Amino acid sequence: MSLNSYGHLFRVTTWGESHGPALGATVDGCPPGVPLTAPMIQRWLDKRRPGQNKMTTQRNEPDAVEILSGVFDDTTTGTPIQLMIRNTDQRSKDYGEIAQTFRPGHADITYHQKYGLRDYRGGGRSSARETAARVAAGGVAREAIKQLAPGVEIKGYMVQMGEKTIDRARFDWDSIDDNDFWCPDPQAVPDWTDYLNWLRKDDHNSVGAMIEVVARGVPAGIGAPVYGKLDTDLAAAMMSINAVKGVEIGEGMAAAALTGRDNADEIFMGPNGPEYSSNHAGGVLGGISTGQDIVVRFAVKPTSSILSPRKSIRIDGTPTEVVTKGRHDPCVGIRAVPVGEAMMAAVILDHILLDRGQTGGLRGQIG
Amino acid sequence: MSLNSYGHLFRVTTWGESHGPALGATVDGCPPGVPLTAPMIQRWLDKRRPGQNKMTTQRNEPDAVEILSGVFDDTTTGTPIQLMIRNTDQRSKDYGEIAQTFRPGHADITYHQKYGLRDYRGGGRSSARETAARVAAGGVAREAIKQLAPGVEIKGYMVQMGEKTIDRARFDWDSIDDNDFWCPDPQAVPDWTDYLNWLRKDDHNSVGAMIEVVARGVPAGIGAPVYGKLDTDLAAAMMSINAVKGVEIGEGMAAAALTGRDNADEIFMGPNGPEYSSNHAGGVLGGISTGQDIVVRFAVKPTSSILSPRKSIRIDGTPTEVVTKGRHDPCVGIRAVPVGEAMMAAVILDHILLDRGQTGGLRGQIG
Amino acid sequence: MSLNSYGHLFRVTTWGESHGPALGATVDGCPPGVPLTAPMIQRWLDKRRPGQNKMTTQRNEPDAVEILSGVFDDTTTGTPIQLMIRNTDQRSKDYGEIAQTFRPGHADITYHQKYGLRDYRGGGRSSARETAARVAAGGVAREAIKQLAPGVEIKGYMVQMGEKTIDRARFDWDSIDDNDFWCPDPQAVPDWTDYLNWLRKDDHNSVGAMIEVVARGVPAGIGAPVYGKLDTDLAAAMMSINAVKGVEIGEGMAAAALTGRDNADEIFMGPNGPEYSSNHAGGVLGGISTGQDIVVRFAVKPTSSILSPRKSIRIDGTPTEVVTKGRHDPCVGIRAVPVGEAMMAAVILDHILLDRGQTGGLRGQIG
Amino acid sequence: MSLNSYGHLFRVTTWGESHGPALGATVDGCPPGVPLTAPMIQRWLDKRRPGQNKMTTQRNEPDAVEILSGVFDDTTTGTPIQLMIRNTDQRSKDYGEIAQTFRPGHADITYHQKYGLRDYRGGGRSSARETAARVAAGGVAREAIKQLAPGVEIKGYMVQMGEKTIDRARFDWDSIDDNDFWCPDPQAVPDWTDYLNWLRKDDHNSVGAMIEVVARGVPAGIGAPVYGKLDTDLAAAMMSINAVKGVEIGEGMAAAALTGRDNADEIFMGPNGPEYSSNHAGGVLGGISTGQDIVVRFAVKPTSSILSPRKSIRIDGTPTEVVTKGRHDPCVGIRAVPVGEAMMAAVILDHILLDRGQTGGLRGQIG
Repeated sequence: MSLNSYGHLFRVTTWGESHGPALGATVDGCPPGVPLTAPMIQRWLDKRRPGQNKMTTQRNEPDAVEILSGVFDDTTTGTPIQLMIRNTDQRSKDYGEIAQTFRPGHADITYHQKYGLRDYRGGGRSSARETAARVAAGGVAREAIKQLAPGVEIKGYMVQMGEKTIDRARFDWDSIDDNDFWCPDPQAVPDWTDYLNWLRKDDHNSVGAMIEVVARGVPAGIGAPVYGKLDTDLAAAMMSINAVKGVEIGEGMAAAALTGRDNADEIFMGPNGPEYSSNHAGGVLGGISTGQDIVVRFAVKPTSSILSPRKSIRIDGTPTEVVTKGRHDPCVGIRAVPVGEAMMAAVILDHILLDRGQTGGLRGQIG
Repeated sequence: MSLNSYGHLFRVTTWGESHGPALGATVDGCPPGVPLTAPMIQRWLDKRRPGQNKMTTQRNEPDAVEILSGVFDDTTTGTPIQLMIRNTDQRSKDYGEIAQTFRPGHADITYHQKYGLRDYRGGGRSSARETAARVAAGGVAREAIKQLAPGVEIKGYMVQMGEKTIDRARFDWDSIDDNDFWCPDPQAVPDWTDYLNWLRKDDHNSVGAMIEVVARGVPAGIGAPVYGKLDTDLAAAMMSINAVKGVEIGEGMAAAALTGRDNADEIFMGPNGPEYSSNHAGGVLGGISTGQDIVVRFAVKPTSSILSPRKSIRIDGTPTEVVTKGRHDPCVGIRAVPVGEAMMAAVILDHILLDRGQTGGLRGQIG
Repeated sequence: MSLNSYGHLFRVTTWGESHGPALGATVDGCPPGVPLTAPMIQRWLDKRRPGQNKMTTQRNEPDAVEILSGVFDDTTTGTPIQLMIRNTDQRSKDYGEIAQTFRPGHADITYHQKYGLRDYRGGGRSSARETAARVAAGGVAREAIKQLAPGVEIKGYMVQMGEKTIDRARFDWDSIDDNDFWCPDPQAVPDWTDYLNWLRKDDHNSVGAMIEVVARGVPAGIGAPVYGKLDTDLAAAMMSINAVKGVEIGEGMAAAALTGRDNADEIFMGPNGPEYSSNHAGGVLGGISTGQDIVVRFAVKPTSSILSPRKSIRIDGTPTEVVTKGRHDPCVGIRAVPVGEAMMAAVILDHILLDRGQTGGLRGQIG
Repeated sequence: MSLNSYGHLFRVTTWGESHGPALGATVDGCPPGVPLTAPMIQRWLDKRRPGQNKMTTQRNEPDAVEILSGVFDDTTTGTPIQLMIRNTDQRSKDYGEIAQTFRPGHADITYHQKYGLRDYRGGGRSSARETAARVAAGGVAREAIKQLAPGVEIKGYMVQMGEKTIDRARFDWDSIDDNDFWCPDPQAVPDWTDYLNWLRKDDHNSVGAMIEVVARGVPAGIGAPVYGKLDTDLAAAMMSINAVKGVEIGEGMAAAALTGRDNADEIFMGPNGPEYSSNHAGGVLGGISTGQDIVVRFAVKPTSSILSPRKSIRIDGTPTEVVTKGRHDPCVGIRAVPVGEAMMAAVILDHILLDRGQTGGLRGQIG
């Protein structure tokens, strides 16, 4: 029972702190025979990388991944894959103040209370830098999925930043990679850009975001009721990401407002099996995939690392005000997009393997 | 890796189907020395029990729990506690039609696709009856918490039913148990009652709901970053409940719309330790409890078992219309209240034990 | 992490005490579609049952198993299977003395030290009665193996009782079920019978035993290096049985005395794949099955429940002498035979499922 | 469920191959506040290191450990500790023959059968080099034990090499570190030295060994019945080591030959709690420690990597003879001594933590 691990058969353990020598992911349970090279993984790390994107922190880390084990002749062998990323941009500075102070909205105080000590440099283990390891592991999962379920496509995007939401009528799947927000509504981008620049430079503030991640082409029948449900594992996967405060599947929280007549996805027989009139379910019924798009949304709170002063205390209990200087993202939600994709990929692969172990990939006939 | 289990050290495995001989929970990891009797558990089962409440299904099951192991002289021994509930009200009927048809919005079709066969009687394993086992296990957790963290109080209530929401200004903690909805807004109750009666009798429909569960008095410092986080485990716990489509902690999905200045809970030194100006965090920072109220909300979709016809298919692929007769709850969210409480209790106890194992219950000094 | 569970994907949790209302096994992860009825399981329980065999305790329990869940139309559904055995022969008696005294060689004292209290009736959870639950679970595993790997045969037998050992030259696989010791050397049986009768009636003593369990026909390639190795899991499975003090695979402890030239099993190409000149390895190389017989041996210590007085202490620390009256087996190793078989079956099935999840049952070509 | 991990709360995942860039251990669950530096771990790696000892392989690897995470200011923080050892002595050579051939007694053939491909360089993942990672993790466990249970001492030694056994009458605990065999019988050392030199140089052979590992000063009451028993976990830990074929606790396999009167360890009240007349149990009763020495023995088979030709086949099924050239240990059991110690340390620490989580370290009063 590693408490820094996720997954059942595809089991990822992340390790490392923001300002330690390195961080990484120990990936156990990747099937053998999957083509895998560092560039295949690097591609996704580059997407998450700080400094890559004008909208994110300017901390400049190459985030170069090394594969230390589990791969031979550019092919996975079925043994643990160790992925390491060296921390390079560790600016030396005086940590005196931050070592004694708890930033409001940060894990500083709870780590101190639980562990009695903490690595205060850049947030230590509680830093969002940990998610680089998840993105690397997600890259492995994507390559394995290519072999096991070739048609699957996984994509994340921002649907909300602060009070600004996309217009679903303008949703353009193909435009997502064309802007710095991974925003699927191209017309919203200029406004979001102006807002975020103002927020950082003039308002000294930060803002929350909502991310949606979709997995297309996932075969019906994966998911392990009643406590390894596909949606249970997705909820845990997303909620474990730093700063996430809510997770939804399909209709999500809005399901509370619906009636049964409106919510039911009616079923029809299509040429290749069952089809549905709608996807309120978000692709999951009873914890098992229906074959429709799997749709997950999660909310990322605004970072509390802002230039505006907030009241707090020091370890000795005396009051203080905290102003977080340094290179922080005004909207950490942006970089949560590739993280959410990586977690989706890990969960999907895990359940494909699990289903094979449980049922041998048996599928009941329909029609 | 049991896929029908939850918890790390306090580990519950539920078993049983809607219309089998019995269902129950195997509860491993309850500490020794906890006073425990069947009536202590029965109290919570009675709260969830069908037929108990005018607003829920009239299926009348006594849901009487038997303790088969793990308790000696009315005290837990530290060995597995087996809790069994016999199914008694299994009306004999012709299952011919339901055996061949998939109800829209139900797990019928995905269970068939995954397993190749299913226990179609009353939904089998996918029935919400499974949650009776969780409620029983939650009763054990509550008694153990009493011994280990005496000040903890756990309470759930409905904050929304369909489009009807409570008025937070009228929130009355003490009135929750006084109505059939566990609604904390007493003035809303008559309207909710009328609406639900109309929905069932006249509209032949059902409706979703939103439940909030609060744990008060939980000590700061429990939670196991970064993948056994308290909020990660709560998200998984709630999402695993039948029909749940979304889970939130504290500010939840609304955190996406906030700025960092508004969202930060400022910290002050109080007479007994740190205090906070607000609780946007919902009592969890970095996956660890702050000592504030732990606040979780989850959305329950409307049941698809309604008298209104919905289009579907049979196993042979032919089209059909499904009308679900029988005794179904028009708002399954009502009975999700004690289930949510039970899951909260299990997670809290589990993390108290886990923290003891991880750190010995060490707490860093402040002030 | 249930500490009363074994197996990865085929996951068994046993529960229950010697003198509680019932005991049983929660069996999660059995594949769907396996024909299963209570008599299929009962057959193996009858083999282990006290009172069945002249050589074992005369406590007379029917040990009738009930299937409470997970089976529909006499077929497994892929959901948890609950197996319950009611305790019926709980002679009422005065437990005053045993409640205050620790029997030498028993878990009485360590349970007291660990848990602060214990169910002293018949040894409570530490009683060998717990193994009835394992035998029941093993019965399920056997039926699943029949479907997944039809040629597998699993058989256990005694190869040593005290200082009496079988003559391997007279080994007769087909005679094993013909005597009360499951002894494969028919000529040894009369001598063993006389010895055991003398030991119990005249010497007021008990004796240890060595059991060998063989699995034939297991396909090459199952086992999960490097910590879910087939032999690792077999060692854990056997060592977890009450009174077991040692476990061997293949050559076992005797491997310490061999040279590399003698120990190597040479490889030849046979008509259906690789064959070996010998089986020092016991069917496992690098934690993975070779396709040869899997051979495990384990030693069972003599029960300390004997009529001869042994020195001990009471809870209050005062000295005492313990003489264990009642119906105890002079050689508990006899009943360990079906238990060892059951554990072998569970491990084999578990690894067949696991291999499917890991590699999809991929097999590298040879020849 | 990582299949390359061991431990419940102190959870170690090893990764890496013999000839890859590096290998290591991801150590999750070490308590916070433990002083830890690389030299503290290096000490134990040096003990296992090839080339260190005249009796072992002359492959010369510095085996220098780097701590990449989980430690701050030379103190553990409660987060995952990554230990990395670079592989440096990877002689380039032609692997053509070994890539096509299966060495008898090696995992070559089973890895190929299971995974369809294998990293054949030096045995890949199945190489005993993997145990370096275990030794590093054991070093962490030792430091944590120092804090949590200061009196514990863990020591391993060889009691048998081939047919040569120590004379227990000459057992000298303090002489163990004075010879290259970790042999506790100083008088046996010259004979063992001559034998091993002859075996390697003249006989072109290898030989098995038996190792005993003792933990002194372990408090009574740790161990988690009935499947996380202390002896169950020790059996699994030792059996998972390369080339181990048998594991014993206390009297071990010899318990089969004893009677109950001889085997019972009688109990007396000593000044500091219960004492025992003997230790046939090996310090474990019912899976829980008694407070006596915990005594484990395991047998290591002779390596099959010998200069003497053995018959085998190639991947294409054609017959061949294998002669393993290169620098191989004639008695791999020697280097298994520090590995066995490391596994003992990991299991003991794990159960100290687990007991804390289960019972809060509760201890029933005696006397």
